[in-house]
Amino acid sequence: MNKDAIAEAIKALGRLDKKNMYLEDFFLTWDKTDEELMSVFKTADILRALRENNISSKIFDSGLAISNFRDNSTRTRFSFSSAANLLGMAVQDLDEGKSQIAHGETVRETANMISFMADVIGIRDDMYIGKGHSYMKEVSRAVQEGHKEGVLEQRPTLVNLQCDIDHPTQSMADMLHLINHFGGVENLKGKKIAMSWAYSPSYGKPLSVPQGVIGLMSRFGMDVTLAHPEGYEVMSDVEEVARKNCQASGGTFTKTNSMAEAFKDADIVYPKSWAPYSAMETRTDLYGKGDFEGIKKLEGELLAQNAQHTDWECTEELMKTTKEGKALYLHCLPADISGVSCEKGEVEASVFDRYREPLYKEASYKPYIIAAMMFLSRVKNPEETLAKLLKDAPVRCRF
Amino acid sequence: MNKDAIAEAIKALGRLDKKNMYLEDFFLTWDKTDEELMSVFKTADILRALRENNISSKIFDSGLAISNFRDNSTRTRFSFSSAANLLGMAVQDLDEGKSQIAHGETVRETANMISFMADVIGIRDDMYIGKGHSYMKEVSRAVQEGHKEGVLEQRPTLVNLQCDIDHPTQSMADMLHLINHFGGVENLKGKKIAMSWAYSPSYGKPLSVPQGVIGLMSRFGMDVTLAHPEGYEVMSDVEEVARKNCQASGGTFTKTNSMAEAFKDADIVYPKSWAPYSAMETRTDLYGKGDFEGIKKLEGELLAQNAQHTDWECTEELMKTTKEGKALYLHCLPADISGVSCEKGEVEASVFDRYREPLYKEASYKPYIIAAMMFLSRVKNPEETLAKLLKDAPVRCRF
Amino acid sequence: MNKDAIAEAIKALGRLDKKNMYLEDFFLTWDKTDEELMSVFKTADILRALRENNISSKIFDSGLAISNFRDNSTRTRFSFSSAANLLGMAVQDLDEGKSQIAHGETVRETANMISFMADVIGIRDDMYIGKGHSYMKEVSRAVQEGHKEGVLEQRPTLVNLQCDIDHPTQSMADMLHLINHFGGVENLKGKKIAMSWAYSPSYGKPLSVPQGVIGLMSRFGMDVTLAHPEGYEVMSDVEEVARKNCQASGGTFTKTNSMAEAFKDADIVYPKSWAPYSAMETRTDLYGKGDFEGIKKLEGELLAQNAQHTDWECTEELMKTTKEGKALYLHCLPADISGVSCEKGEVEASVFDRYREPLYKEASYKPYIIAAMMFLSRVKNPEETLAKLLKDAPVRCRF
Repeated sequence: MNKDAIAEAIKALGRLDKKNMYLEDFFLTWDKTDEELMSVFKTADILRALRENNISSKIFDSGLAISNFRDNSTRTRFSFSSAANLLGMAVQDLDEGKSQIAHGETVRETANMISFMADVIGIRDDMYIGKGHSYMKEVSRAVQEGHKEGVLEQRPTLVNLQCDIDHPTQSMADMLHLINHFGGVENLKGKKIAMSWAYSPSYGKPLSVPQGVIGLMSRFGMDVTLAHPEGYEVMSDVEEVARKNCQASGGTFTKTNSMAEAFKDADIVYPKSWAPYSAMETRTDLYGKGDFEGIKKLEGELLAQNAQHTDWECTEELMKTTKEGKALYLHCLPADISGVSCEKGEVEASVFDRYREPLYKEASYKPYIIAAMMFLSRVKNPEETLAKLLKDAPVRCRF
Repeated sequence: MNKDAIAEAIKALGRLDKKNMYLEDFFLTWDKTDEELMSVFKTADILRALRENNISSKIFDSGLAISNFRDNSTRTRFSFSSAANLLGMAVQDLDEGKSQIAHGETVRETANMISFMADVIGIRDDMYIGKGHSYMKEVSRAVQEGHKEGVLEQRPTLVNLQCDIDHPTQSMADMLHLINHFGGVENLKGKKIAMSWAYSPSYGKPLSVPQGVIGLMSRFGMDVTLAHPEGYEVMSDVEEVARKNCQASGGTFTKTNSMAEAFKDADIVYPKSWAPYSAMETRTDLYGKGDFEGIKKLEGELLAQNAQHTDWECTEELMKTTKEGKALYLHCLPADISGVSCEKGEVEASVFDRYREPLYKEASYKPYIIAAMMFLSRVKNPEETLAKLLKDAPVRCRF
Repeated sequence: MNKDAIAEAIKALGRLDKKNMYLEDFFLTWDKTDEELMSVFKTADILRALRENNISSKIFDSGLAISNFRDNSTRTRFSFSSAANLLGMAVQDLDEGKSQIAHGETVRETANMISFMADVIGIRDDMYIGKGHSYMKEVSRAVQEGHKEGVLEQRPTLVNLQCDIDHPTQSMADMLHLINHFGGVENLKGKKIAMSWAYSPSYGKPLSVPQGVIGLMSRFGMDVTLAHPEGYEVMSDVEEVARKNCQASGGTFTKTNSMAEAFKDADIVYPKSWAPYSAMETRTDLYGKGDFEGIKKLEGELLAQNAQHTDWECTEELMKTTKEGKALYLHCLPADISGVSCEKGEVEASVFDRYREPLYKEASYKPYIIAAMMFLSRVKNPEETLAKLLKDAPVRCRF
């Protein structure tokens, strides 16, 4: 985008209703209106274009963005810190460690103790079913209360960097990639996307990716097909969300136990492994009881279960059955590539290879999506502020 | 504070003699004059007010604040990084690890090697009696010499983030809370504060908190009562400091072995566990000899000793005996709350609950106290610089 | 340097041809022309002088500098983060861990995933012969390709923070120290430098230091003598580089197995332990095979081999044989000091003590060398940008 195009985009952003995003958290895409989601996409595009024009969008002169990764994460960590830096915040990590599942009193206290100068808190907590989302809500309540009581000068807003239910920064990066790839959100209407389980030799991959995808892609009139072997169900609540979304958006939501059926004539395919929801519930219970014998046993069972479905692989053959044989292949990365990262995995090497460039582009949207979420939650008049940035054009780097 | 009030506060700051703080370290509150301490309080209040008025107090365009936490620390870590960020410095952690007790040559060399672009160094080293404070002095000497020899472009100043003797950022945050709570330092005269030992099921809690409190609160005419069971003495040197302070300030310093006596008619209570000084000396020796059998034995003895004093608990009943039954309850957090974080601890849950809001406020002063210490050690004419910030009013966040 | 001297230095920089450094990596000093190396020295001096005049050289308003330390490193870590901060970038660490030797697909993907907003990547990877340099090349290719394909908005440039072959930020800091110590690069012509092996009770110290030194110091007409006991050969390729450099620069490159011969009449001595190249090759193979028995055995052999050469120590006696008995002593630090950090080591305590100040100065150049490498790879018209900084004179700290 050149500067005129950016100015146009800012005007378009101005027409979207997003006033309720100000000082609000971002937990689940289905908490947000269509216009709010479109505002995130628009803002992400604008922030990216500003940077590409060497215009700084540093709206904070000082301020902290706190990250709390309850799982290891390189990619999301870098996306979060890129986004924070783009807007002018310094990142401070809260290393709670995996084991230490804080709750109640401790969450409330810690949330306040770290937030005296925090503008944004990003949390990734996707390991245990029924925990991550509730934990984020708890933190949010704590800092809201802290702000109300005058303990916190500002009320930090939360960005869900992946929970047990949704992975909004991933699904929205995926979708912004689709919007830009297909030349506009209106072109997604009627497109068929296959969100399909795929075989992986590891187990326990998070459900939040497929859930995030069906919960979001169903919003804009797409034909969403969810495919997985029997026994690999996702949360039924999220399926219900997808169904309702489709009713509203004019799309369809279809379930199938056949990868071939899902891929047939698909415009977009997203083959990706995940763990069965019920197994993850069981695992959470076992962890709760400290039953490590049980966990080990469950792992064995899950790997054996996976091994029955090695044919769920995104092959060249399957790709040929998609729309004109050239569906867009999506993945949140890293993928299990057959013969590369493992003997047999989610995708054939030649397929992955062919799509490397678009896959990397897909990933490149994440820092901007996170930055946009932060921006819209901290800035009262986003279009005004962006227009001022465009006009003043502070340089990002004195080249 | 609105802008007029800030301007007034800056004028008041201008009347305080603080010229010796420039390019000086902050080790112990009793190294500082009353006016110097008041300058820290004033500056902390002003920096907070500037931020609340969305005025940036970023005096550094670049520069490093180095932190060296020889113990784990979430709260102090966040306070330090908040303070550094508020003033414009990036934080760089020196992870020396607990085990590696550097000394002599190594301290001198490392201190210089990390300080080429360091404006501030914050150190927390409270584990071993007789070590932390000396270590900080050693680092200070090393960087002073390095600066004198032209090795270091600037001479970084040190902030004691807790040593074996004092915990000035904690006690001064506590005191600023009191000043603001009681409406001015002059209102503290004659107030009774009970710094009391309290039972905890863990052992070896640092002495620097009670020592810091009696060493500071005795400066401003308060009646300071130190209460603990026999055998839980603090450093006698610090008691001596408190005694002398009282002579000068018109306060009193009383010791008792009765929690009830300490709480009686107290305006402020600070019930908090700590380890006996002599036991900590023994432990330091055992660590020095690598006598892990001995350490284990000592731990057992200390826990058993603690267990004889489970009645040293801040109960509702005790609170009723304080001034009008409503003394202000202080704690450095986290507290051992009976029935919440442990079966039996320092404070009854209902007492803690009632004081949560003021407790969080108390903690909220720490980043500003640290920032004020940094500010006064780096800025030659603090009131001029602050006045300029107020006038120019650079925005912290383009809301 | 005062401002006039800085202006002069900027003009001198303008006369050097360095256009090929723009958007290029810095892997090995022998990849670079003499004028390019001189540009780094000049820029480092200018950046240091600007800072000493309280002028900020923050050319980035936002941006990330990514560090990837595949070994533990305090000094280089601080130098890198100082340099990044000086120019306005935030540091984000990629903690890959030592064990995880990524390659191929994984390197390409990770390099792109972390670089969406990265301007600079610094890598230290010196443990395994034949690995570090290749890894850096791989990362470089990956991000170049990513940029070409539109995945990365900018093409981050790499700085080699130590590989298996060269340690350019160290050798150039050493050399800038020499230039400033002897009053100009022209005064180094004909000076004798002894790069000598020295005894250490530890084993496996990297070869990149002596290799970097002979590969660089031979560029400017010095008489370079490499001394080590038989069996402690460095890479023959780098010796070849040194030989060729000398032919071009009018210096000499001499090898000897006698420390005394090397020290005789030397102007500069650099006594420092390293591991035999062939042993490091063997170790790399053993690690590749996971042969931990073999590694243990090799360690034992190497320590025994070292122990035969405890007489390779930089003593007062040896120092007396140098030019006028006062050669400049260099070391990359930390040194193994006899009677201080170990019973018997690389250098006598009294020698080390006498040179502490110049040693610390030597080290103090590293952050500026790194900053200069970053600067020249990111800024199209370095002299223009520096001249503008000097003219506008943005303050680094509002003192």
